[in-house]
Amino acid sequence: MKPEHLPTFTVEPWVIREPRLDLGAMGQTESVFALSNGHVGLRGNLDEGEPHALPGTYLNSFYEVRPLPYAEAGYGYPESGQTIVNVTNGKLLRLLVDDEPFDLRYGALSRHERVLDMRAGTLHREVEWESPAGRAVKVRSTRLVSLTQRAVAAISYEVEVVHAGDDDNGEGALLVLQSELVANEQLPGRDGGDPRLDTALDNVLEPEQSRAGDAGATLVHRTRQSGLRAGAAMEHEVSGPEGIEVSTDANEDLARTTIIAKVKPGETLRVVKYLSYGWSSRRSLPAVYDQVRAAIAAARYTGWDGLVREQREYLDDFWATADVEIDGDAELQQAVRLATFHVLQAGARAERRCIGAKGLTGDGYDGHTFWDTETFCLQALSFIAPDAAADALRWRRSILPQAFERAETLGLEGAAFPWRTIGGHECSGYWPAGTAAFHINADIADAVRRHVLATGDTQFELEVGLELLVATARLWRSLGHHDSSGNFRIDGVTGPDEYSAIADNNVYTNLMAQRNLRYAAEVAAKHPRSAARLGVDSEEIASWRDAASATLIPFDERLGVHPQSEGFTDHQRWNFEGTPAERYPLLLNFPYFDLYRKQVIKQADLVLAMQFFPDAFTEEQRRRNFAYYEGITVRDSSLSACTQSVIAARTGHLDLAYQYLAEAALVDLQDLAGNTDHGMHVASMAGTWTAVVLGFGGMRSEADGLSFAPALPASLSRVAFGLKWQGRRIRVQITPDEVEYQLLDGAPMRFRHHDEPVALGEEPVTVPLPTPTWVEPVEQPPGRAPRPRG
Amino acid sequence: MKPEHLPTFTVEPWVIREPRLDLGAMGQTESVFALSNGHVGLRGNLDEGEPHALPGTYLNSFYEVRPLPYAEAGYGYPESGQTIVNVTNGKLLRLLVDDEPFDLRYGALSRHERVLDMRAGTLHREVEWESPAGRAVKVRSTRLVSLTQRAVAAISYEVEVVHAGDDDNGEGALLVLQSELVANEQLPGRDGGDPRLDTALDNVLEPEQSRAGDAGATLVHRTRQSGLRAGAAMEHEVSGPEGIEVSTDANEDLARTTIIAKVKPGETLRVVKYLSYGWSSRRSLPAVYDQVRAAIAAARYTGWDGLVREQREYLDDFWATADVEIDGDAELQQAVRLATFHVLQAGARAERRCIGAKGLTGDGYDGHTFWDTETFCLQALSFIAPDAAADALRWRRSILPQAFERAETLGLEGAAFPWRTIGGHECSGYWPAGTAAFHINADIADAVRRHVLATGDTQFELEVGLELLVATARLWRSLGHHDSSGNFRIDGVTGPDEYSAIADNNVYTNLMAQRNLRYAAEVAAKHPRSAARLGVDSEEIASWRDAASATLIPFDERLGVHPQSEGFTDHQRWNFEGTPAERYPLLLNFPYFDLYRKQVIKQADLVLAMQFFPDAFTEEQRRRNFAYYEGITVRDSSLSACTQSVIAARTGHLDLAYQYLAEAALVDLQDLAGNTDHGMHVASMAGTWTAVVLGFGGMRSEADGLSFAPALPASLSRVAFGLKWQGRRIRVQITPDEVEYQLLDGAPMRFRHHDEPVALGEEPVTVPLPTPTWVEPVEQPPGRAPRPRG
Repeated sequence: MKPEHLPTFTVEPWVIREPRLDLGAMGQTESVFALSNGHVGLRGNLDEGEPHALPGTYLNSFYEVRPLPYAEAGYGYPESGQTIVNVTNGKLLRLLVDDEPFDLRYGALSRHERVLDMRAGTLHREVEWESPAGRAVKVRSTRLVSLTQRAVAAISYEVEVVHAGDDDNGEGALLVLQSELVANEQLPGRDGGDPRLDTALDNVLEPEQSRAGDAGATLVHRTRQSGLRAGAAMEHEVSGPEGIEVSTDANEDLARTTIIAKVKPGETLRVVKYLSYGWSSRRSLPAVYDQVRAAIAAARYTGWDGLVREQREYLDDFWATADVEIDGDAELQQAVRLATFHVLQAGARAERRCIGAKGLTGDGYDGHTFWDTETFCLQALSFIAPDAAADALRWRRSILPQAFERAETLGLEGAAFPWRTIGGHECSGYWPAGTAAFHINADIADAVRRHVLATGDTQFELEVGLELLVATARLWRSLGHHDSSGNFRIDGVTGPDEYSAIADNNVYTNLMAQRNLRYAAEVAAKHPRSAARLGVDSEEIASWRDAASATLIPFDERLGVHPQSEGFTDHQRWNFEGTPAERYPLLLNFPYFDLYRKQVIKQADLVLAMQFFPDAFTEEQRRRNFAYYEGITVRDSSLSACTQSVIAARTGHLDLAYQYLAEAALVDLQDLAGNTDHGMHVASMAGTWTAVVLGFGGMRSEADGLSFAPALPASLSRVAFGLKWQGRRIRVQITPDEVEYQLLDGAPMRFRHHDEPVALGEEPVTVPLPTPTWVEPVEQPPGRAPRPRG
Repeated sequence: MKPEHLPTFTVEPWVIREPRLDLGAMGQTESVFALSNGHVGLRGNLDEGEPHALPGTYLNSFYEVRPLPYAEAGYGYPESGQTIVNVTNGKLLRLLVDDEPFDLRYGALSRHERVLDMRAGTLHREVEWESPAGRAVKVRSTRLVSLTQRAVAAISYEVEVVHAGDDDNGEGALLVLQSELVANEQLPGRDGGDPRLDTALDNVLEPEQSRAGDAGATLVHRTRQSGLRAGAAMEHEVSGPEGIEVSTDANEDLARTTIIAKVKPGETLRVVKYLSYGWSSRRSLPAVYDQVRAAIAAARYTGWDGLVREQREYLDDFWATADVEIDGDAELQQAVRLATFHVLQAGARAERRCIGAKGLTGDGYDGHTFWDTETFCLQALSFIAPDAAADALRWRRSILPQAFERAETLGLEGAAFPWRTIGGHECSGYWPAGTAAFHINADIADAVRRHVLATGDTQFELEVGLELLVATARLWRSLGHHDSSGNFRIDGVTGPDEYSAIADNNVYTNLMAQRNLRYAAEVAAKHPRSAARLGVDSEEIASWRDAASATLIPFDERLGVHPQSEGFTDHQRWNFEGTPAERYPLLLNFPYFDLYRKQVIKQADLVLAMQFFPDAFTEEQRRRNFAYYEGITVRDSSLSACTQSVIAARTGHLDLAYQYLAEAALVDLQDLAGNTDHGMHVASMAGTWTAVVLGFGGMRSEADGLSFAPALPASLSRVAFGLKWQGRRIRVQITPDEVEYQLLDGAPMRFRHHDEPVALGEEPVTVPLPTPTWVEPVEQPPGRAPRPRG
């Protein structure tokens, strides 16, 4: 449908436009065009449902359970996993033009354009199509998932008859529009492969209730194993020529409103479809039914124009803080905005539910949440949408009971949060890269710390943070031990890098645990009575402080670098020279056995430690470490480029930082990982913000305040970003020679710019940018350097 | 049926007698009473089939494949496993006495005795039973699996009528004997549990042919997935009163010879049932059919008495070398003989097939072969049944193609032998304790070395050994690497101890690899032309020698002990004090994660290294290491006590050595591990021999000759053992004050006794035993000491 070499999307600052239907990129466009508010997610499937790569409608935390099989079982292995469910599809609007189905694979398509408008928060589509029988129509649809009414989505669908056929007797074309709710859609690819893994997900929704009204209907279903109940409702507003007939029928898995009209050339049939979704693990059938009916009533009360207006207002407010401006690279500008938009979509209204690795844009990773949330998403959200960040941490607190139970199973104190989950139970079926990756617990604690620093919300620290901090500090205290030299060691764990596992004294993990113990001690000491209610006494606090100050951080004196874990730098270097491009990603072509025992890094680990702990490394160590790990890092994970960008920028490798930023930002827009069809890489999207703000902005938020150390790569003429800081909104604009700091609102403040104190009040402050100094270039493994840019 | 407190077996020197039927110990007795020649194995099921714990009839290497499922898949994971098949059951002889089935659960049992005679190689049974209708019979059966005719088993079955019932009109009782071949027997417990794991094994045999003769029949089946073809045949010789009717019918899964006779009180009906088995992965149906018919013809030609005579002659010859005599502990004497007998049964006629961990006595571990074969079984067999040992190594050579393929999959040179298999393919579904346990490759190489030393068979070294040595040396050369200090390191592997995994520079592994490399270099240098045909040149040989001499053997200077692997002694000690008895074995109650990261040992690892490498440790190190590892070893594996016994003896802990020997020997006779019902612990049986000969005998076989350093625990008044050495048979008798060495046959020789040279000719030599010196006692974790003895 389009020549092979044309890009799928045009480059524009505020929209993602697909100017021609790109059937080959359907999976990718469905993800990029997915709309979500963090509660409801609709993949960018065509209104008429087909052709599709993967139909998808998701509700946050609505999952089915399936057994996890093992060739050889072991104690403590999770017996069941959780998989996000493709719920009732309400996006469907099937059109028939004089009995001919509107299907892009038939007839003639003279125009097909889809536009994701990131300021409007809508996906707009325009089609000009002539049926095989010669009827020509223009179809215009606009879809939104409301950021203001979290249960609601809506679609405006217009059909204009252009030509009613050569045999038109003046009555026009007969348009039949079937607007549907379809449950238990058949998913592609589910009938192939290993039947044991997939059968559980066929026909997962058990019908409980279906009711049809005049111009709408409601379906309620329940998952067979997990017992979760979901309702979906639709209502329609129809306008157009006289004599439109509307009727609705509903059965167990299908509700259909049929709209029939004779439409003459030049006339338009318009339908607004309101959708609402709700689910509950506890509420009764009538309660869930009423819940979705109430939501849809509110949506109709607001009306289409009202929903569109609210959406834009919400986004205007968001962008006023969150927008990252980049001059000098239009492609990157667009990508950074898409990234920011998808981070918002993943978290905006998640409201004490999890934020999945793919948001609600696809079923990749079974819809699970990992450490991505705290380490990548919240790193951005705490500064641009702090309410969403707070809710994500409240969700973590809500799953503490499961984390306590898991710790007990593992023979540990405190809480052991799941490596991957939807509902709170551990769903990882491979413990060396699951259970052993205990750093997730410190990642959560550190996200609390960052959030409290960013917001100054000490109430949150006490009410949400304290429990999380105590539970995770106890975990670390029981995971580690003092050796005979007095070092506090944490042995046999897996750090962020998944090409290593089960190693002793991973630097990242130990630094994170140390901070977790210290911060827990600090907060508990600040709130002794609340801490006492959790059983914390001063002896326990002292034991945390003691472990923290004795924590072992290995260092290889011979090489002058930190080993990722003890002994790592003694291992054999991976044979990068003998590994051709087609054998990447390595995990698909080499056994874990081989990867784990050699020096090869999937994703930033020690380098991530340097992002989070700038003070734990001297400048010399930072430089040497970065050069060393650059040489063995292959970036087979999308959770790497953003971190490498931050440290590249902080060690003066500004062009490299820029290249990594672009890789992080473009991962989905250019499908760099080849799997955007499974959903958006939300952590990499969030990492884009981090790369700009922590990298080029050199932003650090510590207990002693905020600081910046901006720098700009030669190819960019301007980078600007904003953030919220303890009730203020700040905007920072970096140009080649100077930086402008502006307080958009909030009280005057002090911060540091390249270690110099700056006072910021109502007036913007402009300070000069230091001249970058030359640094020795670093090298990546052959073929693994980021793409050159600019 | 017997009071709870009575032991299942009586203590007698040469037989295992179950004086009363012990229904509660049925699973155990079926294993202990299993008869096998290494090719065919029959569990000790009752003739009439029921009651049973697990019916079992096995053919060496006859397996079915089943898929291995993974919750999270990974590159190089084996996709299918192999499971030993319960083949056509030919043991069945069902008796009806005047229409009443002879079933021990009904009627009155006045006597039931089973006797395994280890000199005769038979299982004998005597029953006196009265039917519910008052008919009394004596049943005597004797069963053997021929050690001389490997396809053949036979059963002599006699029924004597004692009382034909009060209503007997003088005609006697009507006896109906149904002698059967039954394929696809239903196995207990197969309908519960996880259906995915078990369905593959239901109804696994596809019928191909069934033919009935007058007094016999043949069934041929084929496995559905693995496509192996097995035939089973039976023939009967019947004698007794006049008027016996014999008829046979056969259908797909059942062949039945029915023998009907009127038997008066005092008369006896006798049936000899000949059985033959054969299988092939290649031969045609007629070929397999003919093969089992030929075997059964030979068996009939030999006749029952002939089979019994051959069996005893074979065993007389075996025991003349292999018998271990122990005075002062009758229970241990019996156990050691049973152990030796089962080791013979596992290997005698395996003939280039594998020797499974359970021999052919049960379906535990799916019937797989592990490192047990080379490290434990062959350690004994090379000295007491060297032909069987040679054949086991020939089997290893025969699976080199699969081992080459596996190495290639793993990106390694040479051969990577499977951790567990039947047919040669890796069947391990958990790589940290499977693929990563590379020591199995050196275990094979070392078994070659030991075998060549024991036999002096340099032809074997060249024809079988060279290829194995080159393939394994290449593996090690590619697995290890030289670090920047020049050490040859082997990182990220799993040693023998399964409570540790994926560690660097495991001492056992590195020493074994070092010896593997050196021995390969030596043999290749000795046979340069043969080596050249395998592509070995002097550069490669030099690279093996170089790696061997640079191999890193870590040592903890602070503690003065060898760490099991690098860093091991820095790990936290397991909380033994807080681990109650019921939480053992630990692997069923704690996650691998926890076990791997702490100092807790499932089974001898560093201690096994001290057995195999006495010269790699000073006496001081041996003592300190043994004491250190005793304190953290829990013996959750049956592959430990025998090794601990050897090192206990060699470090002067003679009573402890004796206790460990008893534990190894009694594991099945007293069901110490609680799982003898799954089959015999063949490696522990073999380890019994090792504990006596290498421990109390202090035997070492090195390139510079044989040596002994005998010692005797206070409770034993005499220990004697024999062994073959380079064409000789030697017998060693240790009494409290002296040792007698006797050359039973073969050329005069020299050896060392406690480091003093001894010349041995036709006359026995008696030398005094040094007085044992006091040694500091060692301690085991609380509750994990072996049972006191004597």
